[in-house]
Amino acid sequence: MPITRPTFIVNKEKCLRNISKIYETTKKHQLLFRPHFKTHQSKEVGEWFRKIGIEHIAVSSVEMAVFFAQNDWKDITIAFPFNILEINVVNSINSDVCLNLLVDSLETALYLTKNLTKKVGIFIEIDLFYGRSGILPNEINQISEIANLISSSQIADFKGFLIHAGNTYAAETKAQVLEIHLKNLQHIKALRKQFEPKFPNILVSYGDTPTASLADDFEGIDELRPGNFVYYDLMQHKIGSCERSEIACALLAPVVGIKQNKSEIVLHSGAVHLSKDYVVSKDGTKNFGEIYFVENDYKTVDYSSKAIIYSLSQEHALAKCEPEFLKKVKIGDLLAILPIHSCLTANLMKNNQVIS
Amino acid sequence: MPITRPTFIVNKEKCLRNISKIYETTKKHQLLFRPHFKTHQSKEVGEWFRKIGIEHIAVSSVEMAVFFAQNDWKDITIAFPFNILEINVVNSINSDVCLNLLVDSLETALYLTKNLTKKVGIFIEIDLFYGRSGILPNEINQISEIANLISSSQIADFKGFLIHAGNTYAAETKAQVLEIHLKNLQHIKALRKQFEPKFPNILVSYGDTPTASLADDFEGIDELRPGNFVYYDLMQHKIGSCERSEIACALLAPVVGIKQNKSEIVLHSGAVHLSKDYVVSKDGTKNFGEIYFVENDYKTVDYSSKAIIYSLSQEHALAKCEPEFLKKVKIGDLLAILPIHSCLTANLMKNNQVIS
Repeated sequence: MPITRPTFIVNKEKCLRNISKIYETTKKHQLLFRPHFKTHQSKEVGEWFRKIGIEHIAVSSVEMAVFFAQNDWKDITIAFPFNILEINVVNSINSDVCLNLLVDSLETALYLTKNLTKKVGIFIEIDLFYGRSGILPNEINQISEIANLISSSQIADFKGFLIHAGNTYAAETKAQVLEIHLKNLQHIKALRKQFEPKFPNILVSYGDTPTASLADDFEGIDELRPGNFVYYDLMQHKIGSCERSEIACALLAPVVGIKQNKSEIVLHSGAVHLSKDYVVSKDGTKNFGEIYFVENDYKTVDYSSKAIIYSLSQEHALAKCEPEFLKKVKIGDLLAILPIHSCLTANLMKNNQVIS
Repeated sequence: MPITRPTFIVNKEKCLRNISKIYETTKKHQLLFRPHFKTHQSKEVGEWFRKIGIEHIAVSSVEMAVFFAQNDWKDITIAFPFNILEINVVNSINSDVCLNLLVDSLETALYLTKNLTKKVGIFIEIDLFYGRSGILPNEINQISEIANLISSSQIADFKGFLIHAGNTYAAETKAQVLEIHLKNLQHIKALRKQFEPKFPNILVSYGDTPTASLADDFEGIDELRPGNFVYYDLMQHKIGSCERSEIACALLAPVVGIKQNKSEIVLHSGAVHLSKDYVVSKDGTKNFGEIYFVENDYKTVDYSSKAIIYSLSQEHALAKCEPEFLKKVKIGDLLAILPIHSCLTANLMKNNQVIS
């Protein structure tokens, strides 16, 4: 069936290369590879990981854990601070699934030790000064209190520390990513030194796509948990995590209008397809996505000229065209939009996805 | 079933009041009321309109037209520039559905007159200097050419002009909305004067929530086509279209973390639930949503203190709390988040919606 309306297209060959690249990194550094499935949320893409031997995954909600457990995944970390209202769902997940949960407060840890009816692993989330969830690495008393509570429980198993190095997303060069990563490794070493005497088996789970893509030193880390790399996107390209040609997904969208005098086109491709995430271009304008011509196979992208989306409403995209692009474009063309943030685009387009 | 995870809640009573308010405006001014269903995209909410006698609706995609046609709506305007790739879907919609399409180019109009196999109405989209899709009102030759082409066709019926007064969304006061509206009415009068001699039956379809909520002069307009008013949201509240208490929807979300020393909370409520739309507060910070306590009925909202979301990632929201709010909040609380842009939140939460 030819594609006629906004559709998310996944380039399997590129995905497999992206998966393989990170897998090689984990093997080289003897890390457990636990890919984060929040990016694709797809049963089919999940199978590509399974096929190369991956058995451990991460997800970002209880709902997603249930989905992948139903699809026969047996070792799942819910890498999001546990929501105590969902205790019954967690308790009802089949006990042949090894489940790891995340906590960053004594209160939630206490709740879990009292209300769990099945054995789970628990990680304490450490915030290496990113500022989202997690406990700061210098709050030793708080970390100890939670670790002691969990490890004294019969039902919960204290696994170690889980870190999302989200501060690399603010980096604009490879050097900045590596600088942040180096500081993070120092914090991790200090944490290990502090806690290993009492907890010799603690694991450190670490994850973010920029570091997984660029770093070559993972001392003190046991498992790598990136997600976005499976597709990459323009945000990752801006950081330096990937080449533009490694971006393995696109939103295919039809041109519905051309404004010759303004060098602009209008596409059916709005906030309900792409999401409203953007990067700021060097000239200060917002970039909601880059548009390229694509062949009828939906995967051979022509990177030689482009249009940039500068405005998005619910269903409309407005894009400025380079001169070469404007010369060629016609109403009814189906174009490939490289997304700014593929996790959000993939989430919006879950029900309208094609593998090429 | 108690709600335990991010859920979109619609307050039926408030919706009915919002619907009734705009319906009264259309009756007072003898306008056809053609609500835009892109905001709710819900079969059930659609029925609330039907119950008070509404028969004409607008949608923003062919896909949405098919959905509402399947749900027995018989007069549908697809208020988005027609995507010629979808001609077969349009031709296959049951012919007992009166369908209106939108064009803003001769090319698309020509394509339609050649490829339609069922009778449809066609509006020309006019852009009253908002700058999205549509033809500027002073491009008389272009408008004439399209109008002549359509009206000479056997299969297409030239209906008139369709306008989205999207520039009111940039207004920050009622006075600014009315000022924009007044200018728009002048353009509309000039257009009518120009085209009525040749096309005495042309209709003007006009729509945007700020104008529909605030204006009291619709001279020259035949039908009103707002959508957002059914729920409203914080963007509309900022413009002045509604009171905060008229916002008829919320995202219910659980508190998963509290940072006492920073007066902050962390919720499970991310970009995949709320969308990344924001308004800029007076102090220059981004506001992605306002959080209030809500009773167990999920609809009695306590507006006396709040927290404001200043950062969103895929699943996390970070919010700054007012002191009174911080005193009361607990891990596991289910709170009500008023969305910035209810159309996008409702779209994301389509499969996870509850009516209260």
